[in-house]
Amino acid sequence: MGWTATVLTIFPEMFPGPLGHSLAGRALHEGVWTLETVDIRDFARDKHRSVDDAPFGGGPGMVMRPDVVDAAIRAGRREGVPLVYLTPRGALLTQARVRALAAGQGVAILCGRFEGVDQRVLDAHEAEEISLGDYVLSGGEPAAMVLMDAVVRLLPGVIGKEESLAEESFEWGILEYPHYTRPQVWRDRAVPEVLLSGHHEKVRAWRRAQAEDVTRRRRPDLWARHQAARKDEEG
Amino acid sequence: MGWTATVLTIFPEMFPGPLGHSLAGRALHEGVWTLETVDIRDFARDKHRSVDDAPFGGGPGMVMRPDVVDAAIRAGRREGVPLVYLTPRGALLTQARVRALAAGQGVAILCGRFEGVDQRVLDAHEAEEISLGDYVLSGGEPAAMVLMDAVVRLLPGVIGKEESLAEESFEWGILEYPHYTRPQVWRDRAVPEVLLSGHHEKVRAWRRAQAEDVTRRRRPDLWARHQAARKDEEG
Repeated sequence: MGWTATVLTIFPEMFPGPLGHSLAGRALHEGVWTLETVDIRDFARDKHRSVDDAPFGGGPGMVMRPDVVDAAIRAGRREGVPLVYLTPRGALLTQARVRALAAGQGVAILCGRFEGVDQRVLDAHEAEEISLGDYVLSGGEPAAMVLMDAVVRLLPGVIGKEESLAEESFEWGILEYPHYTRPQVWRDRAVPEVLLSGHHEKVRAWRRAQAEDVTRRRRPDLWARHQAARKDEEG
Repeated sequence: MGWTATVLTIFPEMFPGPLGHSLAGRALHEGVWTLETVDIRDFARDKHRSVDDAPFGGGPGMVMRPDVVDAAIRAGRREGVPLVYLTPRGALLTQARVRALAAGQGVAILCGRFEGVDQRVLDAHEAEEISLGDYVLSGGEPAAMVLMDAVVRLLPGVIGKEESLAEESFEWGILEYPHYTRPQVWRDRAVPEVLLSGHHEKVRAWRRAQAEDVTRRRRPDLWARHQAARKDEEG
């Protein structure tokens, strides 16, 4: 049945959402991948369908209960697929992790709400805690969509001829060079001369210099890592 | 009319998507914020409604045309709001930037597809290029949803009593401590003793140690920045 994403959430009605359109949506309708949702509330034990309770030790907000989440994971997670819990506490998502997930059979994604999920159930299921970046969302659902979108575009046959899989953004381990298309002159702004030269080596060198420049300016962290990796290769 | 997000996209049907539910959805229905979409294809100049063309200088994929995107921005962007272009080439999104956007009147978000957008139109409109992280999506739309979700939860009146705005994840400039709730013992796993002590200072110290530990293990980059900032304060 192809690559399968199983989303554990208290908002199953959010899915497929944007993933029902465009590239991911076409692939979904063609059966290249499957999207399942599991409603965590179905595993609540009281008539109010409660999934959360107050945190031990005090503090604001509510925490999702280990027993309820555990039951949802046991019911929904397919054998052998990693369980990902999306949280700002996680390790940063990388394109390398996205590629590895795309090479597997699928993923189960646990979406937290409120303050988060009881740590014991994450530990018991060896959940992989992943963060999109250093910002806070209202829950894991929008993050799950980003993760699935990133993975699905790498599945065989998903990217058509109008898109490329070159991933130039990270081809050199640095940011991507700028793009230009028609019209050649737009509002007195001309496309950089070198791109019209037809001289492939010069074009490549210019793009490389542009990519290095934008990386230095916007992502000193990435630039430092890139320089360190280059030194290692040379050494 | 409250805080307004204007999304420029070739897939307006993707919105509001997940933002029509839960916290963001309730706030949307109550008029706390407004979500507008602008279909970039409406500004194409040919009968095929083309928005893209081949890149100057060669290479795979297609690039969104400056003239078409410019017309969409002029038609859709509200006066005085920042224009954000979501791209892996951008500066990393931070919670500080999210807070600043929430304090403003709104945002216009340009969603790229294909290889990206002609750089001249981004320069002409002084677009702020922002990246969610070091991974590649099929387009800017899922990223736009994440950005809007992060901002909307900070708007006045959006977070109810079941959620907290403490943002502990970044309160100390490091990752958040783990959470625990009922049952107190679950599958032979007990909640850490200290959380049951009722001793607020001890609870706080334990949480702080846990937060420091997970940050060191999962985010050495964040830990190094945190240590450097602490040194600056002390020095």
